Amino acid sequence: MTTVEHQKAHDVRDETQAADGKLRIEWAEGQMPVLRLIRERFAAERPLAGARIAACLHVTSETANLARTLKEGGAAVTLCASNPLSTQDDVAAALVMEYGIATYAIKGEDATTYYQHIHAALDTRPTITMDDGCDLVTALHKERTDLLAHLVGGTEETTTGVIRLRAMQREGVLRYPIIAVNEADTKHLFDNRYGTGQSTMDAIMRATNLLLAGRALVVVGYGWCGRGVASRARGLGASVIVTEVDPTRAIEAVMDGYRVMTLEEAAPLADVVVTVTGNYHVVDRQHIARFKNGVILANAGHFNNEINIAALEDQVRTVRPFVQEYRLDGRSIYLLAEGRLVNLSVAEGHPAAVMDMSFANQSLAVEHVMRHHAELERKVYDVPVAIDREVARLKLRSMGVTIDALTPEQEKYLASWESGT
Amino acid sequence: MTTVEHQKAHDVRDETQAADGKLRIEWAEGQMPVLRLIRERFAAERPLAGARIAACLHVTSETANLARTLKEGGAAVTLCASNPLSTQDDVAAALVMEYGIATYAIKGEDATTYYQHIHAALDTRPTITMDDGCDLVTALHKERTDLLAHLVGGTEETTTGVIRLRAMQREGVLRYPIIAVNEADTKHLFDNRYGTGQSTMDAIMRATNLLLAGRALVVVGYGWCGRGVASRARGLGASVIVTEVDPTRAIEAVMDGYRVMTLEEAAPLADVVVTVTGNYHVVDRQHIARFKNGVILANAGHFNNEINIAALEDQVRTVRPFVQEYRLDGRSIYLLAEGRLVNLSVAEGHPAAVMDMSFANQSLAVEHVMRHHAELERKVYDVPVAIDREVARLKLRSMGVTIDALTPEQEKYLASWESGT
Amino acid sequence: MTTVEHQKAHDVRDETQAADGKLRIEWAEGQMPVLRLIRERFAAERPLAGARIAACLHVTSETANLARTLKEGGAAVTLCASNPLSTQDDVAAALVMEYGIATYAIKGEDATTYYQHIHAALDTRPTITMDDGCDLVTALHKERTDLLAHLVGGTEETTTGVIRLRAMQREGVLRYPIIAVNEADTKHLFDNRYGTGQSTMDAIMRATNLLLAGRALVVVGYGWCGRGVASRARGLGASVIVTEVDPTRAIEAVMDGYRVMTLEEAAPLADVVVTVTGNYHVVDRQHIARFKNGVILANAGHFNNEINIAALEDQVRTVRPFVQEYRLDGRSIYLLAEGRLVNLSVAEGHPAAVMDMSFANQSLAVEHVMRHHAELERKVYDVPVAIDREVARLKLRSMGVTIDALTPEQEKYLASWESGT
Amino acid sequence: MTTVEHQKAHDVRDETQAADGKLRIEWAEGQMPVLRLIRERFAAERPLAGARIAACLHVTSETANLARTLKEGGAAVTLCASNPLSTQDDVAAALVMEYGIATYAIKGEDATTYYQHIHAALDTRPTITMDDGCDLVTALHKERTDLLAHLVGGTEETTTGVIRLRAMQREGVLRYPIIAVNEADTKHLFDNRYGTGQSTMDAIMRATNLLLAGRALVVVGYGWCGRGVASRARGLGASVIVTEVDPTRAIEAVMDGYRVMTLEEAAPLADVVVTVTGNYHVVDRQHIARFKNGVILANAGHFNNEINIAALEDQVRTVRPFVQEYRLDGRSIYLLAEGRLVNLSVAEGHPAAVMDMSFANQSLAVEHVMRHHAELERKVYDVPVAIDREVARLKLRSMGVTIDALTPEQEKYLASWESGT
Repeated sequence: MTTVEHQKAHDVRDETQAADGKLRIEWAEGQMPVLRLIRERFAAERPLAGARIAACLHVTSETANLARTLKEGGAAVTLCASNPLSTQDDVAAALVMEYGIATYAIKGEDATTYYQHIHAALDTRPTITMDDGCDLVTALHKERTDLLAHLVGGTEETTTGVIRLRAMQREGVLRYPIIAVNEADTKHLFDNRYGTGQSTMDAIMRATNLLLAGRALVVVGYGWCGRGVASRARGLGASVIVTEVDPTRAIEAVMDGYRVMTLEEAAPLADVVVTVTGNYHVVDRQHIARFKNGVILANAGHFNNEINIAALEDQVRTVRPFVQEYRLDGRSIYLLAEGRLVNLSVAEGHPAAVMDMSFANQSLAVEHVMRHHAELERKVYDVPVAIDREVARLKLRSMGVTIDALTPEQEKYLASWESGT
Repeated sequence: MTTVEHQKAHDVRDETQAADGKLRIEWAEGQMPVLRLIRERFAAERPLAGARIAACLHVTSETANLARTLKEGGAAVTLCASNPLSTQDDVAAALVMEYGIATYAIKGEDATTYYQHIHAALDTRPTITMDDGCDLVTALHKERTDLLAHLVGGTEETTTGVIRLRAMQREGVLRYPIIAVNEADTKHLFDNRYGTGQSTMDAIMRATNLLLAGRALVVVGYGWCGRGVASRARGLGASVIVTEVDPTRAIEAVMDGYRVMTLEEAAPLADVVVTVTGNYHVVDRQHIARFKNGVILANAGHFNNEINIAALEDQVRTVRPFVQEYRLDGRSIYLLAEGRLVNLSVAEGHPAAVMDMSFANQSLAVEHVMRHHAELERKVYDVPVAIDREVARLKLRSMGVTIDALTPEQEKYLASWESGT
Repeated sequence: MTTVEHQKAHDVRDETQAADGKLRIEWAEGQMPVLRLIRERFAAERPLAGARIAACLHVTSETANLARTLKEGGAAVTLCASNPLSTQDDVAAALVMEYGIATYAIKGEDATTYYQHIHAALDTRPTITMDDGCDLVTALHKERTDLLAHLVGGTEETTTGVIRLRAMQREGVLRYPIIAVNEADTKHLFDNRYGTGQSTMDAIMRATNLLLAGRALVVVGYGWCGRGVASRARGLGASVIVTEVDPTRAIEAVMDGYRVMTLEEAAPLADVVVTVTGNYHVVDRQHIARFKNGVILANAGHFNNEINIAALEDQVRTVRPFVQEYRLDGRSIYLLAEGRLVNLSVAEGHPAAVMDMSFANQSLAVEHVMRHHAELERKVYDVPVAIDREVARLKLRSMGVTIDALTPEQEKYLASWESGT
Repeated sequence: MTTVEHQKAHDVRDETQAADGKLRIEWAEGQMPVLRLIRERFAAERPLAGARIAACLHVTSETANLARTLKEGGAAVTLCASNPLSTQDDVAAALVMEYGIATYAIKGEDATTYYQHIHAALDTRPTITMDDGCDLVTALHKERTDLLAHLVGGTEETTTGVIRLRAMQREGVLRYPIIAVNEADTKHLFDNRYGTGQSTMDAIMRATNLLLAGRALVVVGYGWCGRGVASRARGLGASVIVTEVDPTRAIEAVMDGYRVMTLEEAAPLADVVVTVTGNYHVVDRQHIARFKNGVILANAGHFNNEINIAALEDQVRTVRPFVQEYRLDGRSIYLLAEGRLVNLSVAEGHPAAVMDMSFANQSLAVEHVMRHHAELERKVYDVPVAIDREVARLKLRSMGVTIDALTPEQEKYLASWESGT
């Protein structure tokens, strides 16, 4: 981290893009009614007054709406990128110029700048951290221990970050309480299935303009993401094959009407293959050897190592944007987005309507930290059930959907279970 | 319990029905390949040798196959009914005459006989109990405490039974370990969704011969059963509306493409209403007042109190088998099976292929008790994960489905998660 | 035809079943609102006054409602069976005793009685015929030419009958005009897809209690019936395979997401096979040789010769009602309903809501004959488009569905198409 | 038409784009196996030797593959655009530079240039015309009657063109035979449903990144296109509402499980509205008045007058590419692609796999003209059934799908229909 960096109040690519960024942020806002309801309440109640929040997140239009919400709640917010590639530069510009939120994020920044930006956020001596992958929290615990005394709590967005935090807790090094937003039902049950499901198919169509009707599409992995992709692919007319390593999930896929087999069996049948496993080299040499000419490979898992790209020959050329053709034993094999998360690389990632619930959880989790930090220990906490349900309630309200409530008699009945046969 | 009862070696309605019962049992066996695989291994290994099992279960063709499996494993098995109405008399006869399994069960038996049969099973001084609803275990703990010394363990099939057992554990009265078979993934994830889903729609068609295409069908409750019913109803062409009290489930139903509203809003739109809540009077006066002429009401929940039948007028006539017409303010309201569990009352309940997994869990849970009872405490245990996965594995094998396995590198990768950005 | 027969005013099995039959007829009426609307208008307008109608149809609860409609319209109606097996005896009794409609039909009647009943209907010297399969019209043209002078027109319900009538027209022997009700869009687009689709799956579940989720179900033939069966089977969770002889339909099945292959390829994969081709021996020796143990065969086509039953061994036993087990090379092959139309044999055939539109076309076609017979030639006519659309309009009205209408500007626009690029 | 124009051997925007265009053409070729099979046969047999073809079509990568096929068949091919906006300039460049096909087409050309290009094609004194909308044929019959003597036949791609040609035939002015490729089953049954269905949803996602799960999406019109859009929207999780003016189609939509109502009723429920009617102002003032804030409007019909854009206020701004926001009574209404065909404007139109069948029909229709023009009259002809089936057969072969064939016994059975009951 250089001295120069410290002196900047923000660091974005091009401040003149602010107007474009504002349009984007407003478009996302239209799909994020829960966050808007919370923002309106926050503006009235100012529950975050006095908080200094350092937030290390993907700097996108959805995140901008989260930052606005926190600011309206009374917090001083500084934002830095949680990934060097995911920043939307116009949004970053708008955050600075239109919304007065200090932002340090440039799309394509190198590793040095990436960490400088994290330190710039830490320089604000935050009382609360928001993290997506745990890089900010790690920097704080390793390099900026002088600042730890200021911290009252934090939040974490992803599985990966939660796993790292739990390791820290086990080793006794975690120094303040963190709420694992990822674990909320209103987050992980929705963004994986509906968000990844739609945006992955969207990306495949954008990249290839392939007719999906009648194609054999192989989904590698039947977790929440895989279920979403399989369901949307079938909805577009594909004949879906599922591969799994977990036998219970495998039967579930069978019962859901999909064919299930090993990837070696599926390989010669596949027109399209989508990996969603969180695992390593699930598409490997022995599968590549069996693919038919013209197969299309895409990854919708977090890291770009689900497909063993090294196993493809190095004869490669780009035949369409995001589509690379590898030649192998006389066959063409098409890889999308170089094996990177296809829905973010080719399409626009999770639709805002899905991030609405995730970021509503973020906002309410921060409020919870403000109210209850005195009682919290140096541990990783789940999102309180009350917050999870509140997000669901607000989402329904924003959709104009009303649901039933239990009567007192029904509450009592459900609690008793006395009667035998 | 009378002395006479004690002297009978079995008690079934009509021994001459044994041949019919055998056909039924064999038909079910054809759909229960996992249980058959286990039975074959049990016959070779005899892991239950020396066990005396008292099993209080629905005496159906599927249960008969479970009993055969236990017997082949070396156990002495005595069977009694867990519900006075669910016994298949021909199956009971076949169990006695064809398979030599002592059975005490008569369809329509009164409460006195019901409990006599339970005590007849207890008279065998069991070492292991199998229960479905906890009536056998309750009788044992309340009235036959002299027998408790023989017990090494037991199993329980249903939610209701598990809840009662947990209450016993909390109050410190449970005297031997019980394995809650219901909690296995290979049980509750499958029988509720695929079993209840299909058999409920089957029952509605048998009772009414109604064309489902284009009908508004309201599913009250979006748990696993409700998800199954909604999915199958949509698959038959119905336009499905979901009502819920839980906001997260409500959004899930919205995202799955169903309309969600209160039951009062849904009532005037409904052509068919199916309750699957486990709750009390979920269809009540205020809903009945708003139904349109000709609406069909069915319950697929466990007890017959989900629909407030008393709120319907007493002008009633049977217009088809299992279809009763209530007249109310000039409207006809049709109630199926008097509000009882429609899939068991009108159709044949869960298909055998679903019970295959449940009863495979039962068999392996008993084997587990035999092997590990020395280490078990007086508690309610989940089915060991290894058993759950073994059932899934066997089911896949029986379907001829092979799946992938993790490589050592992948196992290691999944355990590590070290890499940051 | 005997003299005895001539002296009976009707011939049904058991007049005391009339009350049961009336309940059935009323239940069907509840699902036939279009026919009811027509009946109400007919009662007011009496458009069929003076007509004598001889109707040779399946004597079911739906047909009873058609007969009532014609009678209310002023016609004298005599009914005889169009198939010796499809008569509902209680409905026949109710027609005679409750509705005063002369009916000649006994379930299971032999061929002699079957033709006596046809002649009994002809004895009434009809002015209009309604036929389902052309047996009545054939008898008239071959044996009762003396009566032809009375005839002003007729209707025909099925494909088979229409084909026979067209042959008669080609050969110049048809002596009066017939309206081919089968050709109405509101008939054949609906009963085949939605009626056959649902009732076939209903029948398979009733006969076998098979879990369909995850089963490979082969649909032989992808016409309207096949499309219906495939769609409903998929909706119940089956993995559907389609076989066809027509390449365009085959691609359509592929694009609809089904696997398509020859039946020889499909045979070893099949858990269930459903034939819906209208063709002969489509399941033949070479397929039977490749089926796996436990396969279930059902026919949903009109005649019971789609499956070559003779090619199955004669070792056969009934293992459940409507389920026969054939043993072949150590395998069990299960045939439902002896290869007869499974939805009528095991379930209740097309739901009344589907027959509502077919019989509305029948009623309005008869009215059309009454009004326009002077202008009609000795030919087979399609149902006038105005009637077809009127049936659709009434069906929508009965469902409470309102739709848009073209504005005059839009009508004009659609008629012009002048503008180039 | 200027003299200058006449002297150009081709007219494309930028010849240096040829390499990009070639990649595109090859990508499409990978999805057009039927056309490739025909091209290979044409190269061997040269059935078009001696033909001069003037083709007025959308100059896209799929059309380029058609032009290559015709050229390989021995024809001299000249290509001009059938729409000023649909030309892909790089493809046009590649056609000229890489494939030696004279092409006159520039994206965005004005009306004068558009017609100059048509005349440039006519200047080649064609013996065969291929048209998409009838502009070329109209110019020929109106302005270049001197050339008519050369013509032996032609083809027409679209509904609009066929309608204009039929009007010409009725008025007795059509001077040579034309084959209506649009009427082939393998064209209109596939491109409308599967092509428009997928590409419309693709376009909506690209334009808006909207989460479709749980949205109310209104499809205006339930023809083949509407059915395709409705099916794909439901497959993506939307709750679909259909509006129609035709009552039979309306019931079909009901039976398919969609809600059906008037557009005025649907308007306040809609999150997204898609018009696919071929009609004028189907979304008009009275509907716009009832839309809720944030509704998204898209047209997938041929012309941009399905939505009455003039009825939207003139306060408009572009908020995302292809998304314009109209402000109206405090509401935002979003219009995609200014009401133009959304799948072509925002996405890439029909996937190549669908055009494969359309253009296979074109190629074989031209061959048919070459072989049979002596027998053809000055009329509009359907595509011969043999060609339609041949296209289907080749498509199946290219997919590796084999189907059954009728046995001689079955052929005979199907032709007879003699047997009565």
